[in-house]
Amino acid sequence: MGNELVEFLSRYIPISDDLAIALSKASMYRDFPKGSVLLREGEPATRGYFLLKGCVRSYVLKDGDDRTIDFFIEEEPVIPLEYGKLRLSSHFLECVEETVAVVSTPDQEERMLAEYPQLKSVCLTMAEIMSEKLRECLARYRISTPEERYRELAERRPGLLQRVPQYQIASYLGVKPESLSRIRRRIALRGGGKAAPDRS
Amino acid sequence: MGNELVEFLSRYIPISDDLAIALSKASMYRDFPKGSVLLREGEPATRGYFLLKGCVRSYVLKDGDDRTIDFFIEEEPVIPLEYGKLRLSSHFLECVEETVAVVSTPDQEERMLAEYPQLKSVCLTMAEIMSEKLRECLARYRISTPEERYRELAERRPGLLQRVPQYQIASYLGVKPESLSRIRRRIALRGGGKAAPDRS
Repeated sequence: MGNELVEFLSRYIPISDDLAIALSKASMYRDFPKGSVLLREGEPATRGYFLLKGCVRSYVLKDGDDRTIDFFIEEEPVIPLEYGKLRLSSHFLECVEETVAVVSTPDQEERMLAEYPQLKSVCLTMAEIMSEKLRECLARYRISTPEERYRELAERRPGLLQRVPQYQIASYLGVKPESLSRIRRRIALRGGGKAAPDRS
Repeated sequence: MGNELVEFLSRYIPISDDLAIALSKASMYRDFPKGSVLLREGEPATRGYFLLKGCVRSYVLKDGDDRTIDFFIEEEPVIPLEYGKLRLSSHFLECVEETVAVVSTPDQEERMLAEYPQLKSVCLTMAEIMSEKLRECLARYRISTPEERYRELAERRPGLLQRVPQYQIASYLGVKPESLSRIRRRIALRGGGKAAPDRS
């Protein structure tokens, strides 16, 4: 597994042998069965994740309703909103599939950055890529209808529609499951988009 | 004006004298009258901004409708979605007020980072703060009603409600101007929230 992280990082910076060894420490990697809860609302958010395999969903319970905030898949970081903060988590993180992740704490990250300052460039690049994705995501979300959001999701992350239950996709798009079914039927009738098999 | 940037950055890293001088170069600063358009849809997005004074709005024209994506104020970076990319801008940037900004291009940024590598830490910190804000913003937007969004805006960025026209606030919250008026009346009746004077 360590090799996957080294391979990923080496797309951004040259990885020296000692850094490769440090990154391969088995203690950093964790395997979570499907359904594992990585974080609960009200707990301190002491751990960040970088996904090597699987899918993680962040959600809140609001007036008894399960509302999906986001999905994360391979090669994506999962950073709780309150990561490293004093205030407690406002949301849940759960593994939608069996998941393998690099797990870290703010202390460990600080130590790694102090010991291997070359990691700062890759962190900066990744933070920029993440900011960019988030800005785009927020912009598109603000100006689009649920149907447009669905089409875009089908286009940008086609695998996701097959991997997670439809009711989670519905709350992610900000609609009720019935509306998502209607959207999918409309798209199927027009023959556009990539309709996913129904898992709701 | 250079001093404001130095003062801002020195909250994050010690600023050497030569860096302070480089940051004070008048050529980096620009003054834009209210209403200036910094970027149009369909233009290459060759410039990034860091606001020292004023307010900038990003928006799109969709089916003839003006839809606000975001507002930016003092000490916030304004990075077009397509900044430094080959594809053309999908949105507009306009100054809602008279605005003073540090203006830069990807090339200039690269040169500054090569010459003053200590700036990387501050860029990393800012990219992280920005990612954090964006993640929170997106999460809140996905799970909240327009009224909740308005209350939150009034709480987190109280000044903004006084500074920009109400129809822009309405599209930012994802509602029609009439709905925003209703929301504001409801809140005023209950005696909660900070209602802003109507500028629509």
